[in-house]
Amino acid sequence: MKAALIQHRYEGNKEDTVKKSVEMIKKASKEGAELVVLQELHQGNYFCITEDVNNFDLAESFEDDVKFWSNAAKENGVVLVTSLFEKRAAGLYHNTAVVFEKDGSIAGKYRKMHIPDDPGFYEKFYFTPGDLGFEPIDTSVGRLGVLVCWDQWYPEAARIMALKGAEVLIYPTAIGWFDEDSEEEKKRQYEAWLTVQRGHAIANGVYLIAVNRVGFEEDHTKALNGIRFWGASFVAGPQGEILKRASFDKEEILFVDIDKRRMEDVRRIWPFFRDRRIECFKDLQKRFCD
Amino acid sequence: MKAALIQHRYEGNKEDTVKKSVEMIKKASKEGAELVVLQELHQGNYFCITEDVNNFDLAESFEDDVKFWSNAAKENGVVLVTSLFEKRAAGLYHNTAVVFEKDGSIAGKYRKMHIPDDPGFYEKFYFTPGDLGFEPIDTSVGRLGVLVCWDQWYPEAARIMALKGAEVLIYPTAIGWFDEDSEEEKKRQYEAWLTVQRGHAIANGVYLIAVNRVGFEEDHTKALNGIRFWGASFVAGPQGEILKRASFDKEEILFVDIDKRRMEDVRRIWPFFRDRRIECFKDLQKRFCD
Repeated sequence: MKAALIQHRYEGNKEDTVKKSVEMIKKASKEGAELVVLQELHQGNYFCITEDVNNFDLAESFEDDVKFWSNAAKENGVVLVTSLFEKRAAGLYHNTAVVFEKDGSIAGKYRKMHIPDDPGFYEKFYFTPGDLGFEPIDTSVGRLGVLVCWDQWYPEAARIMALKGAEVLIYPTAIGWFDEDSEEEKKRQYEAWLTVQRGHAIANGVYLIAVNRVGFEEDHTKALNGIRFWGASFVAGPQGEILKRASFDKEEILFVDIDKRRMEDVRRIWPFFRDRRIECFKDLQKRFCD
Repeated sequence: MKAALIQHRYEGNKEDTVKKSVEMIKKASKEGAELVVLQELHQGNYFCITEDVNNFDLAESFEDDVKFWSNAAKENGVVLVTSLFEKRAAGLYHNTAVVFEKDGSIAGKYRKMHIPDDPGFYEKFYFTPGDLGFEPIDTSVGRLGVLVCWDQWYPEAARIMALKGAEVLIYPTAIGWFDEDSEEEKKRQYEAWLTVQRGHAIANGVYLIAVNRVGFEEDHTKALNGIRFWGASFVAGPQGEILKRASFDKEEILFVDIDKRRMEDVRRIWPFFRDRRIECFKDLQKRFCD
């Protein structure tokens, strides 16, 4: 099964950004991709850089957005993983990945479970933590463990998806650097992001796809300078080996072949699921063991 | 706090091997180490390469071994992490890490919880899975999350130790290559081992020490050629950054400074513990979600 990761910039407005995505999906499909993954909140800028009630307007179009991407999936005959701003009710919003089948039907959705909040990433202001749990989504290309961004730091999320049979973990992401950080700190942050996710692929013997946005996005309030999204979308195999990796600063489509036989082989030599001490894992449900 | 990792070969017999370890502990102590970590089953060869009831003789000396290493800790004034073959009763054995205080008293012990079993690593034949749970050990140099080898593939073990306040995860290890594997496969295996552990350091914002044996050990039954232990003992910081790494083929003492302030700083910028969706983690106690 051939998958495509689409890494792009924000084009300054929704219309141009969405047009760019659709062109890239079309190209990916033409080159044989059956699964296409878009980056986090790919329709626009990363608006969580500041807290502004007017940004809730962006979620008003959620139903139309779903129709739009359904159509994009159908026209290109691909399973499509999108990342949208969902208005569920007045004052109740989610960061939601909607997955479409090749015929445009909704295969499933995942509401981001772990919500970050730190300077420039004010997501707790915008998104209620998901209430759909960690449920993989069945599609014609396999069972997809769709998670979003901050989830990628949590081994528990990856593990539960794998225990429920996910064959590929998929993370639409928006992560970047502050230019004011040292080069050393930037390197540590990027490598930590890459490494913790490769760790999930290894611990669970699954494929892992992470798609990150790229380019600099300004903070118009001037409270911060802005975020330089580091791109570097990648695919890891079930031993955590990096199969493909994008650049830090360019728009790209990455193609990769997902081979389920390889997962089977790796789990035979490294049968981690065989030996988990599940009777001793109760403390994982605690906040902290004081 | 200065820690030392001691990576060495099997010297062909217990007496010479133990002598070598003691010399290295002495050297580490002289250079200011307060915490010294030895590799898995450091007193002899990695006997689990084959299943042989005679090898249970090696555990007969457990009580004497404890006295011996207690004395080594006391003489050198270091907190010492050892890895011993424990006879608990006839027909009941564990792979046990005993941790000694600087005065030679026993600070605590950990019985390896996850037991591997694959060709050349027949540990399920020798070791009953531990029944002491994942409990960190308090020492004068900090709270140590001591785990052993196969545990290193399990994010749950690392997480529980961290939730219980472990500041350093410590893994005495015996892992190596089969010479008959391809160079590519060897690279993937080594990198997976390194990466999954760095992932634990990142996900939990803790230091991580892994000490592996080095050198080739033959299989005298000739069922296998033998195992080439890959050394590469290392220390990762709380962002998973590699602070020190040993060679693949030499005996070495690695020194590293453990800075608790750095852990505090990293957890302030990456507060992963804040957001865990513990109410949704029940499935982690399942073998598989069929």
